[in-house]
Amino acid sequence: MKIITLLSDFGSFYPAQMKGVLLTRLADKAQDIAFVDIAHDIPPQDVRAGAFALLSSVRYFPTGTIHIGVVDPKVGTERLGLVVESGGQIFVGPDNGLLLPAARSLCTPGNFPQAYRIASFEGLGSAPASNTFHGRDVFAPVAALLALGKSPAGMGPRVRPNDLNFGEAKKTDRGVEATIIYVDGFGNLILNMRKLPAFPVKLMGVKLKRVRTYAQARRIEPLITLGSHGFAEIAVNEGNAAEAFCLKAGDRIELEEI
Amino acid sequence: MKIITLLSDFGSFYPAQMKGVLLTRLADKAQDIAFVDIAHDIPPQDVRAGAFALLSSVRYFPTGTIHIGVVDPKVGTERLGLVVESGGQIFVGPDNGLLLPAARSLCTPGNFPQAYRIASFEGLGSAPASNTFHGRDVFAPVAALLALGKSPAGMGPRVRPNDLNFGEAKKTDRGVEATIIYVDGFGNLILNMRKLPAFPVKLMGVKLKRVRTYAQARRIEPLITLGSHGFAEIAVNEGNAAEAFCLKAGDRIELEEI
Amino acid sequence: MKIITLLSDFGSFYPAQMKGVLLTRLADKAQDIAFVDIAHDIPPQDVRAGAFALLSSVRYFPTGTIHIGVVDPKVGTERLGLVVESGGQIFVGPDNGLLLPAARSLCTPGNFPQAYRIASFEGLGSAPASNTFHGRDVFAPVAALLALGKSPAGMGPRVRPNDLNFGEAKKTDRGVEATIIYVDGFGNLILNMRKLPAFPVKLMGVKLKRVRTYAQARRIEPLITLGSHGFAEIAVNEGNAAEAFCLKAGDRIELEEI
Repeated sequence: MKIITLLSDFGSFYPAQMKGVLLTRLADKAQDIAFVDIAHDIPPQDVRAGAFALLSSVRYFPTGTIHIGVVDPKVGTERLGLVVESGGQIFVGPDNGLLLPAARSLCTPGNFPQAYRIASFEGLGSAPASNTFHGRDVFAPVAALLALGKSPAGMGPRVRPNDLNFGEAKKTDRGVEATIIYVDGFGNLILNMRKLPAFPVKLMGVKLKRVRTYAQARRIEPLITLGSHGFAEIAVNEGNAAEAFCLKAGDRIELEEI
Repeated sequence: MKIITLLSDFGSFYPAQMKGVLLTRLADKAQDIAFVDIAHDIPPQDVRAGAFALLSSVRYFPTGTIHIGVVDPKVGTERLGLVVESGGQIFVGPDNGLLLPAARSLCTPGNFPQAYRIASFEGLGSAPASNTFHGRDVFAPVAALLALGKSPAGMGPRVRPNDLNFGEAKKTDRGVEATIIYVDGFGNLILNMRKLPAFPVKLMGVKLKRVRTYAQARRIEPLITLGSHGFAEIAVNEGNAAEAFCLKAGDRIELEEI
Repeated sequence: MKIITLLSDFGSFYPAQMKGVLLTRLADKAQDIAFVDIAHDIPPQDVRAGAFALLSSVRYFPTGTIHIGVVDPKVGTERLGLVVESGGQIFVGPDNGLLLPAARSLCTPGNFPQAYRIASFEGLGSAPASNTFHGRDVFAPVAALLALGKSPAGMGPRVRPNDLNFGEAKKTDRGVEATIIYVDGFGNLILNMRKLPAFPVKLMGVKLKRVRTYAQARRIEPLITLGSHGFAEIAVNEGNAAEAFCLKAGDRIELEEI
């Protein structure tokens, strides 16, 4: 059984075209494949949000899983296409940092992510690669080759990939400054902080109750917790923090010590 | 072939983590599993809407299907996790009523739904269960055990589960009062009424044409019909009833006799 | 391995009911089936948008694929249900033109799409077909029969199906007039033009840069390109053309020669 996951900002129907390409190329091996859609509603061209969704998901997949990630504002330019191997899983997508936080999260001491450039886009299919949809015309065919047993190193020369990090929350005079990486479907604000502040904090003058679980706050009470993804998260119990504070992904906020 | 369905209010990428956990634990049995996503766009924490979507779907699945339902505002509190068996299908999720209407709908005379408490959250995985995501850390591992053959009764002691009902439309002086259970993607308003009123009705002064099928109404004409799910439904032919009447799930309405 | 795709305007949870019906009827053959969701977020009752999504996707699927398409404003009326065979793929859905552009796109010289009327809705299941959900009650059972080996011609008499075309862009005094077929998730405007205008153009007074790939335009610069689907497409690099020009599917626009 081989698992192929897909993550993109494509929204509707383009992911199905990638699956059609994969199933066509896998032919009678298609029976051994399970597709899992991680997300296709990443905000358009938000590489950082896509990287977060991938990072927080890959640890739940077994060895051998192939992840195709496509949030690719520079498609059709000279940016490289990559295959990255880390911790027994394989990543395929553009060289813009999207894949790297997830790949790094799987590394073990002495075993760092290995990245290979997809050397030739032309040999991958009968049709020439479109200039606007490498997910279907390059990355899906590459993933099919990998699923059929081709080694990542066989795809092209080793390269040093572009990385992406979520930054680090910074100490300020009044507390700590952080960036919102992602706003999830509940309106929870996920911050670039791997642990909770050491002190009680307020946001825009409103105290955030420090809890282990949403329901420890009262109804509509703002809170801060360490989310299941391992990042600090601001939420409103049974409410929507993004709406309540009028914040969105990419915004910087200051958590003031109380 | 074993079918596992998933229903949640998670929106993006958390359902994929549940599938990763399931596939990892099923290992070489994963080949015999088919995942079906029922819905992940249940309005956040709207247990009633989730219960409706589950209720209206389970009758179309074969014996042996395992349904994981997670709309869980009280995650991390003392609320129980349940396994419920009914009519040859199995349900896994929180003890907040989400699973019960669906489970009851499959019962046969003398065979009522049997509910079991998930006795220990700790034995289910190598990592400690997060306080905010039991779908991934508790219910998915339990569903994997069930798919591998563990019996529902083996999960813990029998309990009397919390139930949920959609209420009943009530006779009023002027007609009948009902609650909107669900607003579907077409803006159709699904009511807590299992049959149409016995008399012609109007809503907010507007006559609702009684039809068997949307197209029996004129274009943009409001109508009432018995939906394919077995509940009365207010629609606007080729239009959007929720927008036209400015109504949403949870609203109470009065259908006045004409 | 048999692939069954699904396309609809159903949004949430109704597609899962179709899959439940299919899996139930395929029984022990279900193991050989792969479902691929093409899209379920087609704008409600927008047959043309559904036809475009299907047309642009089917070429990526292998011979033998069965496509169920349901955008069906006239459900429950006398409109026919169809099975269409073309280029080795099979289409199931309403006779309203939804399936035809995709089916025609697969034809080869001398092998035109063959359409058959679904002769009897009654023999398909134990329950009577609902008047509002033929996707689940008619088309899914028909697709199950086809997946189990029944021939399209065995479903009913040959008929001449209703067709749909996207029109043709027209030459005007000042340039060319086109219709927006589809607005994708990036806000890109897909036009009913199979090639780019032969001359430089502006839209609403704004010059559209003619590019092969989005990134050839500057940030927030409007552009026109031949999309990966083979239709001309107006986009704003790293922006949203539908919002920038306040346009939507169905709108007619004039591209003026500069």
